[in-house]
Amino acid sequence: MPEEEIIVQVDSLKAFCRQVFEKVDVSPGDAEVTADVLVQADLRGIGSHGVARLRRYFRGLQTGQMLARPQIKVDRETSTTVLIDGGGGLGPPIGVWGMRKAIEKAEEMGVGFVTVRNSTHYGIAGYYAMMALEHDFIGISMTNSDVLVVPTFGRDAKLGTNPISVAVPSGQERPFVLDMATSGVPRGKIEVYKRLEKPLPLGWATDERGRATTDAARVLDNLTRRAGGGLLPLGGVDELLGGHKGYGLALLVDILCGVLPGAGYADTVYPRAADGKPLPANVGHFFGALRVDGFRPLAEFKSTMDDMIRRMKDASKAEGQQRIYIHGEKEFEAAEERTAKGIPLHPNVVVDLKAVAEEIGISYNL
Amino acid sequence: MPEEEIIVQVDSLKAFCRQVFEKVDVSPGDAEVTADVLVQADLRGIGSHGVARLRRYFRGLQTGQMLARPQIKVDRETSTTVLIDGGGGLGPPIGVWGMRKAIEKAEEMGVGFVTVRNSTHYGIAGYYAMMALEHDFIGISMTNSDVLVVPTFGRDAKLGTNPISVAVPSGQERPFVLDMATSGVPRGKIEVYKRLEKPLPLGWATDERGRATTDAARVLDNLTRRAGGGLLPLGGVDELLGGHKGYGLALLVDILCGVLPGAGYADTVYPRAADGKPLPANVGHFFGALRVDGFRPLAEFKSTMDDMIRRMKDASKAEGQQRIYIHGEKEFEAAEERTAKGIPLHPNVVVDLKAVAEEIGISYNL
Repeated sequence: MPEEEIIVQVDSLKAFCRQVFEKVDVSPGDAEVTADVLVQADLRGIGSHGVARLRRYFRGLQTGQMLARPQIKVDRETSTTVLIDGGGGLGPPIGVWGMRKAIEKAEEMGVGFVTVRNSTHYGIAGYYAMMALEHDFIGISMTNSDVLVVPTFGRDAKLGTNPISVAVPSGQERPFVLDMATSGVPRGKIEVYKRLEKPLPLGWATDERGRATTDAARVLDNLTRRAGGGLLPLGGVDELLGGHKGYGLALLVDILCGVLPGAGYADTVYPRAADGKPLPANVGHFFGALRVDGFRPLAEFKSTMDDMIRRMKDASKAEGQQRIYIHGEKEFEAAEERTAKGIPLHPNVVVDLKAVAEEIGISYNL
Repeated sequence: MPEEEIIVQVDSLKAFCRQVFEKVDVSPGDAEVTADVLVQADLRGIGSHGVARLRRYFRGLQTGQMLARPQIKVDRETSTTVLIDGGGGLGPPIGVWGMRKAIEKAEEMGVGFVTVRNSTHYGIAGYYAMMALEHDFIGISMTNSDVLVVPTFGRDAKLGTNPISVAVPSGQERPFVLDMATSGVPRGKIEVYKRLEKPLPLGWATDERGRATTDAARVLDNLTRRAGGGLLPLGGVDELLGGHKGYGLALLVDILCGVLPGAGYADTVYPRAADGKPLPANVGHFFGALRVDGFRPLAEFKSTMDDMIRRMKDASKAEGQQRIYIHGEKEFEAAEERTAKGIPLHPNVVVDLKAVAEEIGISYNL
């Protein structure tokens, strides 16, 4: 099915998003931040977390699932740690608030950690970790999320795709930016295989009885109906290839993001009423910032980072391979290209954006 | 090949190890710590990191590859961070020193981070993370290690199995203790398959051309000769099942343990001279401790941990499965059983221990 992508310019896409958020009463500052988080995802080539989600954010604000004007507040604070209550607002402004706090603490004390409760979907984890790079700090960002992932040997989804992002400054080379779901693949990948009617690789997902499956449509249908099965943790269906490790990382993220701040965790992040209706979400985040110079002079650290990166990139390649990547590299390259040439949007996403524009009575002219 | 295991009692095994270390001039305190780290690994069922390594530690001390009486010193210190120079001594006493410092900092400041350079093999990562549990803190422990793991799309091993351990206190339930190599499997697993002449599952290792292989003997031979290939990161040979994520975690550990303290990193952790002779190692570690009550009252946190653990354990099982585990659970159960009944040692390990006893002129009567 040939689907022609539509190229839109970065600035106008961001302005459009901002306008939409402001129309549903989000403050100009928060609208700007949320637009930036979404468009940065598209810029970096992570379309699943970009403006493709605008309609969902918009609808959530409309229905009151998230609040346009939340009261974000500090619930507990020490010289190195902060607990934030997000007040049920949009995830991105809450996340930026939280990561800024972590950076402030690190500036003063060497390290800073912030946990957040009562938040919602915050977009790409890497956005917040990368905020630390401007200060030459190491940045950490994690979030829990809606249940999609089965624990090893379990039948039902009990955990989110719970991503981990860590950003580390470097010198001449591009920074290291790990930004990974702790599941093998995100839900969007299963959707792509369904659309293409391709069998899933074994190790991505399980069916309603908890067996590894190649049937994308069945996995998605089961997830929607909460009928059992789901995405597999990084490492696959059992312990043979290390599925218990991915499951352990997902639990760790849920502990730091859910249990530690008192947010939702496991299957309580996106609770539903008895009739299946969604109740307000209680997503949790975890942010950290670490000064490099608490351990080692920054310049030394950066040049060693460069050397380590080059040792990887310059190493001999496996047969048939041309290139060894460092984490974040593909995304930096995508961002450069898309900043220059514009962002390619899937036609379905454009349909969505146009529908939103029409609904709130603004013109769509991207 | 039926190999009868030999059961030894915990206390006598520990006393034996202590005696061996003292005979090669290790201080009584350091001998005690090192013996404890080794025996705890056997107790917890992680034989690859237990007294099976005594002979290697012993030989390293004899040949001066590690020093019996190192000068461990603090090279840099802030209110929340410490950089330690291990002076080339045995890893376990250096590790315990480092983790204690992290805990002290956390006691005062809420969080504490310690990096270590000029250390050697420190045994199981979980030992140090679990030290935080006695204080009801969250503990973090990582180390880099000898090159065995290939980067995604690379031909040659450039990274260690670089484990990550995080220990989290709980209430009625057992604590969460994640302790995982960032490779799919450790080298020891390949050795077992070689001994049993079983083909490796695809996704564990690559051959000298960088292709996934089932040939255990070839992988081990290549690794010894540094002829190419090696263990694969968690997630396998390419990006399909997430091998780039395991590779990213291995890099992260190398950054925190190697680049940050100025220890070895990538293929410089265990350097070799031009003639292939091993030079002194420069292993690095990273330790962290985090007070729970900086974020949330401890009792609340613990009861939520219990609830999260039960939500996993009580969840429906996949077809054919009886039990969902929490990380550390199998090891706690092994430790209980072995404390009562003794530790089963592989006959080859006993041969090794006897050889060491004879060499230094002590009696072996376990």
